[in-house]
Formats: sequence, structure tokens, C-alpha cells
Amino acid sequence: MVARAAAFAVFAVAMAATAAAQKKPDEVIAYRRSAMTMIGWNFGPMSAMVKGKIAFDAKEFAQHADRVAGLAPQVLEGFAQGSDKGAETDAKADIWTHFGDFKTKLNDLIEQSQAMSDVAKGGDEAKMKDQFKKLGGTCKACHDKYKQD
Amino acid sequence: MVARAAAFAVFAVAMAATAAAQKKPDEVIAYRRSAMTMIGWNFGPMSAMVKGKIAFDAKEFAQHADRVAGLAPQVLEGFAQGSDKGAETDAKADIWTHFGDFKTKLNDLIEQSQAMSDVAKGGDEAKMKDQFKKLGGTCKACHDKYKQD
Repeated sequence: MVARAAAFAVFAVAMAATAAAQKKPDEVIAYRRSAMTMIGWNFGPMSAMVKGKIAFDAKEFAQHADRVAGLAPQVLEGFAQGSDKGAETDAKADIWTHFGDFKTKLNDLIEQSQAMSDVAKGGDEAKMKDQFKKLGGTCKACHDKYKQD
Repeated sequence: MVARAAAFAVFAVAMAATAAAQKKPDEVIAYRRSAMTMIGWNFGPMSAMVKGKIAFDAKEFAQHADRVAGLAPQVLEGFAQGSDKGAETDAKADIWTHFGDFKTKLNDLIEQSQAMSDVAKGGDEAKMKDQFKKLGGTCKACHDKYKQD
């Protein structure tokens, strides 16, 4: 699955290059912000379940996990070259000067969100909670370095 | 696939009810607008290929089709009850007085986008273009009636 996610990520970057040729920076920024909004929407109840704030529902958790796994590669496309300037963005300028590191962190998100979806299909609550923490770690690692407060 | 999409749609509505209990109207509206932005992003190159404005690339087309199929059910969740008022929206008020019809149209989108993704996996250009027109028809049917210009 990791290999599949990585191969997919390479493909996604190639596609991003194509898309970037046709899209205005504002459109690219709107796309990535939309992807983040949708990931956040799905992440919220997963986090609340892991923290015990709402009842754990394995089926609903798995559904959200599947959504996040589908959305994660789309974030990468939303950072197409040329989208460093344009509409309002929380993306720090460091992204563009450290793009290799940034891309590695986004690939971590893609891999761990795919792993989250796979684990959630098994329905084991303890494993799901454990993998969710790994997934959350990939968000934090990137946000700490590349997202404005 | 149609049965699967329909079953999924029912599940999605049930989830939307759960999510709606925890979300503010502005968040729900932001979510559906994000889903629409992402669908539009993926629809653009598919449409351009069908119209011959850019070269037909079956692999890229299939990738966009897969994205749209994943995003379509999320639009439905973004019309959770209680999100009729709030942030700026292009959704006409008629949605809420004709919700059964609206939901039928969204389910058409979900089914035809899943069919599009399935057809695209086969890689037959003529079939892909034919199914894209059916899919586009589901967008238009709903926008004509329920989306403000």
C-alpha cells in the first residue's frame, strides 16, 4: 500500500504540472484550501472519537478515513509551481525554498492516510486509534514548519 | 455499481445527519463549496478533452473521473439540514422546499460519476466521452434548477 501510495504521489505530481499549465494561481490556491477544508471536516469527528469526546463508531470512522485518503493526494496538486503568490493563503514562503522537504512531508500524509483507511477497514478500534495518532503526526510535522498561525 | 452508489448515498445522508449535529451552518456551507471547487477543478480538463480543446489523455481523464466519483457523495453531506442560511452560497432556497427532488438529482450525480470512473478504467475513449456527457447532464439538471447564476 505504501508503494502504491508513493507511485500514486509521483503520478499526482506529474498531473499537477499539467494542471498548473492551465490554472491561475488563485485557482490552485482555492483548490488546495478546499482540499484542506474537506480533510479538516473529516478529521474532526475522527479526532473527537479518538479523544473520547464522542462515541466511537467504527463504520463512520472508516468512512472519514477513506475520504481523507482520497483527498490527501489532491493537496499535493494544490501546491503546483507558480502558486506561491495569489489569493490569501496560510502557506509559508519556506515551502517554495524547501520544496523537496515539503513534498516528503506531504507524501508522508498520503502514505499514512492510506494506511489509516486500510487499518480502519479492519475495524479494530485500538489499531485505528494508534494509526490515527501516526496520521495526526504527519499533519503536525508539516503545519509546524510550513503553515502560518 | 448503481446499487452500491445508492446504498452509499443512503449511508452518506445518515452521516450528514450526524455531522450536522456537530457543525455550524457556515462550516457546512464551506464544506459543500469546497467539494464543488474540487469537482470543478477535475471536471475542467475532462471537459476540455471531450471538447477537443486539449489532447485526450485516457490515464489523466480516468484519474480526474476517480476524483469526481470520490467527491460527489461529499456534496450531499454539504447540504445537511440547517445549512439553508449562513455564509454566502449559490444554493437557491428552492433546495429546501424541494429537498426530495434535489436529493434525487444529487444521487444521479453520485451514480453517474461512479459509472464515469468505472467506464474510464476501461480506457475506451468513445465510451468515456459518451459517459461524460451523461455525467455533465446530471450537473446541468441540478444547476439549472437549484443554483443561482
